[in-house]
Amino acid sequence: MSGPSNHYDVTRWPVGDPFADLGEVINSIIADIKTRQSNANVADGGKPGAVIYLPPGDYHLRTQVVVDVSFLTIHGSGHGFTSSSIRFNVPEGEWPELHELWPGGSRVLVDLEPDAGEDDSARAAFLVERSGSPRISSVEFSNFCIDGLRFLPDGSEHPAANSYLNGKTGIHVASANDSFRVVGMGFVYLEHALVIHHADALSIHDNFIAECGNCVELLGWGQASKITDNLIGAGFRGRSIYAENHGGLLITANNVFPRGASSVHLTGVSRSSVTNNRLHSFYPGMVILDGGSSENLIATNHLLRDEEPWTPFLGIDNGLDDRFGLIRVGGDHNSVIANHLSLVIDAQRIRPPQATPVAVRLTAGTGTLVATNHVVAMDVHARSGDSAFSAQVDALLSTTASDALGVTTVLVDPASARNSVLDSGTEEQVVADRTANAVRATPTVGA
Amino acid sequence: MSGPSNHYDVTRWPVGDPFADLGEVINSIIADIKTRQSNANVADGGKPGAVIYLPPGDYHLRTQVVVDVSFLTIHGSGHGFTSSSIRFNVPEGEWPELHELWPGGSRVLVDLEPDAGEDDSARAAFLVERSGSPRISSVEFSNFCIDGLRFLPDGSEHPAANSYLNGKTGIHVASANDSFRVVGMGFVYLEHALVIHHADALSIHDNFIAECGNCVELLGWGQASKITDNLIGAGFRGRSIYAENHGGLLITANNVFPRGASSVHLTGVSRSSVTNNRLHSFYPGMVILDGGSSENLIATNHLLRDEEPWTPFLGIDNGLDDRFGLIRVGGDHNSVIANHLSLVIDAQRIRPPQATPVAVRLTAGTGTLVATNHVVAMDVHARSGDSAFSAQVDALLSTTASDALGVTTVLVDPASARNSVLDSGTEEQVVADRTANAVRATPTVGA
Amino acid sequence: MSGPSNHYDVTRWPVGDPFADLGEVINSIIADIKTRQSNANVADGGKPGAVIYLPPGDYHLRTQVVVDVSFLTIHGSGHGFTSSSIRFNVPEGEWPELHELWPGGSRVLVDLEPDAGEDDSARAAFLVERSGSPRISSVEFSNFCIDGLRFLPDGSEHPAANSYLNGKTGIHVASANDSFRVVGMGFVYLEHALVIHHADALSIHDNFIAECGNCVELLGWGQASKITDNLIGAGFRGRSIYAENHGGLLITANNVFPRGASSVHLTGVSRSSVTNNRLHSFYPGMVILDGGSSENLIATNHLLRDEEPWTPFLGIDNGLDDRFGLIRVGGDHNSVIANHLSLVIDAQRIRPPQATPVAVRLTAGTGTLVATNHVVAMDVHARSGDSAFSAQVDALLSTTASDALGVTTVLVDPASARNSVLDSGTEEQVVADRTANAVRATPTVGA
Repeated sequence: MSGPSNHYDVTRWPVGDPFADLGEVINSIIADIKTRQSNANVADGGKPGAVIYLPPGDYHLRTQVVVDVSFLTIHGSGHGFTSSSIRFNVPEGEWPELHELWPGGSRVLVDLEPDAGEDDSARAAFLVERSGSPRISSVEFSNFCIDGLRFLPDGSEHPAANSYLNGKTGIHVASANDSFRVVGMGFVYLEHALVIHHADALSIHDNFIAECGNCVELLGWGQASKITDNLIGAGFRGRSIYAENHGGLLITANNVFPRGASSVHLTGVSRSSVTNNRLHSFYPGMVILDGGSSENLIATNHLLRDEEPWTPFLGIDNGLDDRFGLIRVGGDHNSVIANHLSLVIDAQRIRPPQATPVAVRLTAGTGTLVATNHVVAMDVHARSGDSAFSAQVDALLSTTASDALGVTTVLVDPASARNSVLDSGTEEQVVADRTANAVRATPTVGA
Repeated sequence: MSGPSNHYDVTRWPVGDPFADLGEVINSIIADIKTRQSNANVADGGKPGAVIYLPPGDYHLRTQVVVDVSFLTIHGSGHGFTSSSIRFNVPEGEWPELHELWPGGSRVLVDLEPDAGEDDSARAAFLVERSGSPRISSVEFSNFCIDGLRFLPDGSEHPAANSYLNGKTGIHVASANDSFRVVGMGFVYLEHALVIHHADALSIHDNFIAECGNCVELLGWGQASKITDNLIGAGFRGRSIYAENHGGLLITANNVFPRGASSVHLTGVSRSSVTNNRLHSFYPGMVILDGGSSENLIATNHLLRDEEPWTPFLGIDNGLDDRFGLIRVGGDHNSVIANHLSLVIDAQRIRPPQATPVAVRLTAGTGTLVATNHVVAMDVHARSGDSAFSAQVDALLSTTASDALGVTTVLVDPASARNSVLDSGTEEQVVADRTANAVRATPTVGA
Repeated sequence: MSGPSNHYDVTRWPVGDPFADLGEVINSIIADIKTRQSNANVADGGKPGAVIYLPPGDYHLRTQVVVDVSFLTIHGSGHGFTSSSIRFNVPEGEWPELHELWPGGSRVLVDLEPDAGEDDSARAAFLVERSGSPRISSVEFSNFCIDGLRFLPDGSEHPAANSYLNGKTGIHVASANDSFRVVGMGFVYLEHALVIHHADALSIHDNFIAECGNCVELLGWGQASKITDNLIGAGFRGRSIYAENHGGLLITANNVFPRGASSVHLTGVSRSSVTNNRLHSFYPGMVILDGGSSENLIATNHLLRDEEPWTPFLGIDNGLDDRFGLIRVGGDHNSVIANHLSLVIDAQRIRPPQATPVAVRLTAGTGTLVATNHVVAMDVHARSGDSAFSAQVDALLSTTASDALGVTTVLVDPASARNSVLDSGTEEQVVADRTANAVRATPTVGA
């Protein structure tokens, strides 16, 4: 049996109060789906799943949602992002014309008990987990907001508001899965926004994932997935896009903004693409291929590494020094082609002092092609720490009063060999053993 | 309090008649949202916003909609585009088997009074404007049609149907904004389809914006936004995609067709990407970077400049001559890499007569890398002015009876210096002062 | 007149039973739309169309749906894909913990009579066809599943489950059309998933099309369309993405997995883009430009050709030998730039034996630019035929115990001339008549 009752509205379900505990309501709906769709093993025994709708509203989630049925869509009407930093800048007393303090849309407020459990999956608002066969398929999360509400003190001097730590995860997929979709979602103030293990043909598309500790983490292993057309920005401790042991992953058309410790970090990932993204960071180590990541294509990305503009974060970074490389490649036979890399940094802040910053660094492996990359490096004076939106844009646009900065456009470590470095810097800018690597410098006037 | 009543259907709202004046209805709904969600400044005071639904239908809009709440989604069920040129080709009297004359879907007919106001914002169907703090966030327009109905005479001889002038704007965002989304929309016969000031983390994705004077205009300043996966085509007077003073803008995967005066025009835009688009125009001046636009990446785009095929527009163009360049770059340290440029033009129509057309032109600034671009130039006979769809395709595919055409693949003006031009034309095709710029010609047989 | 009744739910329509025959229900709804919206030829005569909703459920389709109205959206709540191979691996008798056998979501089960007709259009679940003027516009299919249920025996020894033949088509658009959208759909076990003739400004976006004989086929001719951000994989007999006589087609951000006979095949296609895709195949002939396809851009794609890992398909392929080329270009003035190509094959299986596999092959035409492509070739031992998901990923990631394999990175046939081949292989790897083509080998150490 399948019919109109496969469409559920959480505000109309007789069990529980979705505003008090959305988890209780959705788990009750999933139990109902299972009761009504129980005929798996007969010839015409369809189990089509269902759609659960969250109209715009504030839904506290005090019980973890456990999804263990295929073909379930949970969707809302609004990703509901607003910059939560506003909350922590509200002055004491009155603020005339203050419109709102919190995210909105179809908003899930993650209010799990802090002692919910030791591991990450226990502290996820939505857990997807199922044993048995086949793999769970076609679960979709779309167009609602998961809000972790606030971060916790981390023992340092900087305010709790900025720690990016609270032990909360938005969506945690623990089991092998097929053809999942995460689209049009908003994630905010979660230590981990989206953690997916063992993904096959996953689509993470057109989401807004910001002010989270970590944004997209594909763990375990996986294949043939895509992370496309998202707006993403993690915290200084975390990863904006991370994948491990994936093959055939396509990461494209994303706009990844600060302050993630890394923009795209791939470990043990092969035959995958990082193409056509716009990446912005305040630290070195933006694109990292390690753990034997091989045969990947890093092409036509725009990378900007500039200075932290906001006072509360001055002096905080990801701990890497400027020789680390904006793009750092370990592993064999990768391709780094046609990228634009801008380093707009204060020469007085370079670490270690007097070092020459590195744009692309090959640390290990053989046979990588680095071709036709354009590295621009400029020295700018330290900024004033103005956090206003218009000041941020000024910083992004600013090229005045800047001088050319010495840069190593490509550094090939002795542990890496038999690479070709073409048209990616002048003779001086490419630091590599010419007896072990082929180098063709970008022609310059008079050279 | 928030509940199911945060979902509104304009056809079921007790105030006003949405078919007679949609503006009155939506403004009444927004007033209701504000009355019901008024508790901004308390700890758990959510203002989740709402969703307003337009089922398919013809909705006249005689009062401007003013959006001044965050977390508002206005959505329909159909972008409803149809080529409006059909209306102006209907013969007098009968036309058997004429199916429809007008756009459809969830369609807003913009019927504002022509004396609605002097400035553009007053003549917008949807105005988003709010003062105070924080910036307005997470407003979404999705999946409906905004139809400006008709253009007005412009005093010239060509028919009003083709003037692209009527003073109407579809959506005008006047205030600084965050995390807005415009997705799946249709815009047709508006002088300005979508005008957004001061955007942060804006997403304009998967829309259909055609037969409008101007399509996407990002004004003032802004950052970290994306214009992706749209079908776009402006009028001969206008701009298909325009942005000013933006940083970190990602323009990718768009299919931009004629006849915009420019396909992508960036003024004072830095550290942004125009990658992976398909661009088609009938005039020079397709991609323009001016006003000091710097450190941008223009890569893997396909550009086609061919001849106007449609009789009513013969002799009408954007006024630029063929030395202007298809890609024209002023500003420092830009990258123009791996683009394909096809010029398929009638040598008899080149302006000024006997001039050699220019593909990529650097007019100012220093340090731009132009590498691995492929320019193809052909002389074709003037076309017949057949507007039929099949004839348009024929023109697009036509390479018969064409001869190679002399072309300057890259022209570096004296005002620009210290650029590198690599593998983007033969020695003769690259016109640049070799004492001021580094040039490596594309190898040719026997050279 | 237009109003809320332009929103239809198939489970609430009084005519027919959507679970028994969805076609009868939708055709009845379309008839109703036509009756209610009949005033085409008057000044304010809107025919806005409608939206038809399929809640999650199993809908048998025994009557073909015929769409002949513009502005019709048919949408569901779930693409419902699950790998159907599970059905054919279920052991006799009990399988504890078997969750489901069939796809789900808003699922259309294509149960047309096998004698439905001779031609493909007669055997399509959804046929779009309309004569008269104007062209049919703005039809949208979104977010439901079309399931062909099973394949039929083909006379060979391999199981019917894997023949990819059943004469069924999901959606067949027979007439010239404008501004169609196919988004978020799932297609499974159809011989032809999506066949569209004469498309203008079509968008095929974010779909899941797998385990179908052929996936996307754009036939006849067409222009200015896009195929973006899809997950696609055809059968060994078929085509994953095919287009003929198109101009201005943009194919980007797709993840195309095995086993299609071709990944992207363009015949008579000009001034189009295949950029930024991830392509994976078990055979040569992944990207084919033939029939005079000219002035296209093939850039920043990642191609992987490796070995069939699954026992039932061992020995089955597309019949092409390893000299065919992974990218094969006939036609003039194309661009092949900045692609990464990995060949990870068993030297013992190369066909013909002892041949050197070819990565990029130019078979005809003049003036193509092949630049900055990176070809990686490795010899791996034949695999065990393990179909488990984790084994598939292992295969994708595996680089151990592999040796470098001799490869012709670019082969230019005598029938093709005046091409430029730059930085796409060593002197030995580029096989071309140097008196007819310009070649610059990728620099190597010591060379």
